Amino acid sequence: MSKIQLIEVKEDILSDNDAAAKTLRDALKKEKTFMVNLMASPGAGKTSLLLQTIRALRNDLKIAVIEADIDSMVDAEKIAETGIQSIQLRTGGFCHLDVSMVKKGLAALDTSALDVIFIENIGNLVCPAEFDTGATMDIMILSVPEGDDKPLKYPLMFSKCQALIVNKMDYLPLSDFSVERMEKRVRRLNPNIKIFTVSCKTGEGIDRWAAWLLAAVNSHIR
Amino acid sequence: MSKIQLIEVKEDILSDNDAAAKTLRDALKKEKTFMVNLMASPGAGKTSLLLQTIRALRNDLKIAVIEADIDSMVDAEKIAETGIQSIQLRTGGFCHLDVSMVKKGLAALDTSALDVIFIENIGNLVCPAEFDTGATMDIMILSVPEGDDKPLKYPLMFSKCQALIVNKMDYLPLSDFSVERMEKRVRRLNPNIKIFTVSCKTGEGIDRWAAWLLAAVNSHIR
Repeated sequence: MSKIQLIEVKEDILSDNDAAAKTLRDALKKEKTFMVNLMASPGAGKTSLLLQTIRALRNDLKIAVIEADIDSMVDAEKIAETGIQSIQLRTGGFCHLDVSMVKKGLAALDTSALDVIFIENIGNLVCPAEFDTGATMDIMILSVPEGDDKPLKYPLMFSKCQALIVNKMDYLPLSDFSVERMEKRVRRLNPNIKIFTVSCKTGEGIDRWAAWLLAAVNSHIR
Repeated sequence: MSKIQLIEVKEDILSDNDAAAKTLRDALKKEKTFMVNLMASPGAGKTSLLLQTIRALRNDLKIAVIEADIDSMVDAEKIAETGIQSIQLRTGGFCHLDVSMVKKGLAALDTSALDVIFIENIGNLVCPAEFDTGATMDIMILSVPEGDDKPLKYPLMFSKCQALIVNKMDYLPLSDFSVERMEKRVRRLNPNIKIFTVSCKTGEGIDRWAAWLLAAVNSHIR
């Protein structure tokens, strides 16, 4: 088995997935449902950001969450505690979500009655960037302890997202992370990306992010 | 393109890779060369641990490093500054290393003249766990800011490693990470794993880890 054969298979999968993603995105648009694909490294704070975002927007929007995990239910349980509908997809080893997996989650939801569906993708800065999920918007989190060099190392992820949430700003005093240096590196890849600095622990910066997201959703669904 | 077809391809790739890994491991053993496959999330401290380990062991062992990165040279440059031979593999989008990629790196080294070769795998807790690189030993880093629930979410990675380095212990006071809770979760998957708590920033705990690794290498190569 040579490396070349693997690439060919992957390209086939990617082009089939891209076509299915476009169809799904169009169908959700017709239903006036906004879908956010949230990506990040393990432990960057995806579930924490969802909890803060739910708290900020639950009076304005009808929200549901699809949680993807290789082999646990802990994130979906945290979301369910808020009373928001939460679906757990167990990928059993898959390192990313594709459209066929997302559709299994959507089938369990009444999508036309919802304003926003958040997908929490697998914790991984590599593979999820390659697979369009059919989401209306791709969002990523970078947490301060991961370091400001990550845009150099995972360029596809930083290139494809419409917004970047820099989380764990409360760790900044302990870290050599430079928001300015990180931003310069990100803008080289993606000049128009929106950047929000937050701490999901203290709540710092959540209002600004939530207001921006609410405006994006409203312009899509109203 | 259904999910089932993807799985079949993956299994073919995995079994071919496993056979090649065994052959490589045996060949390195004959040359009395120890190879460490170092895995972790993005930003957990792989390069920092290598720099600390090189500092601790460079007088005892002949060391080289193979750095894997999707699209940059920053890590290999940091290693090269120590004067240790450093090879950069650019994977151009691949989310893990397999044996064929590792062999391209080894071809650039005089392996029989080396005691230890460190492979810094792609920053990813999912895919690298599935691909045997042919290394003598698999090691992983979990950093404190990632959280103590990671063993629940990435069980294969925690199951296959012989040692776990818990890095960024200097962040512990700011975090709700519990070393005890994490250890309980890890031991359920992998009762015999060696666990080291370190801070690559302060140097705390590096001596203990380096002494253990030196003993493992010596029992393999002498």
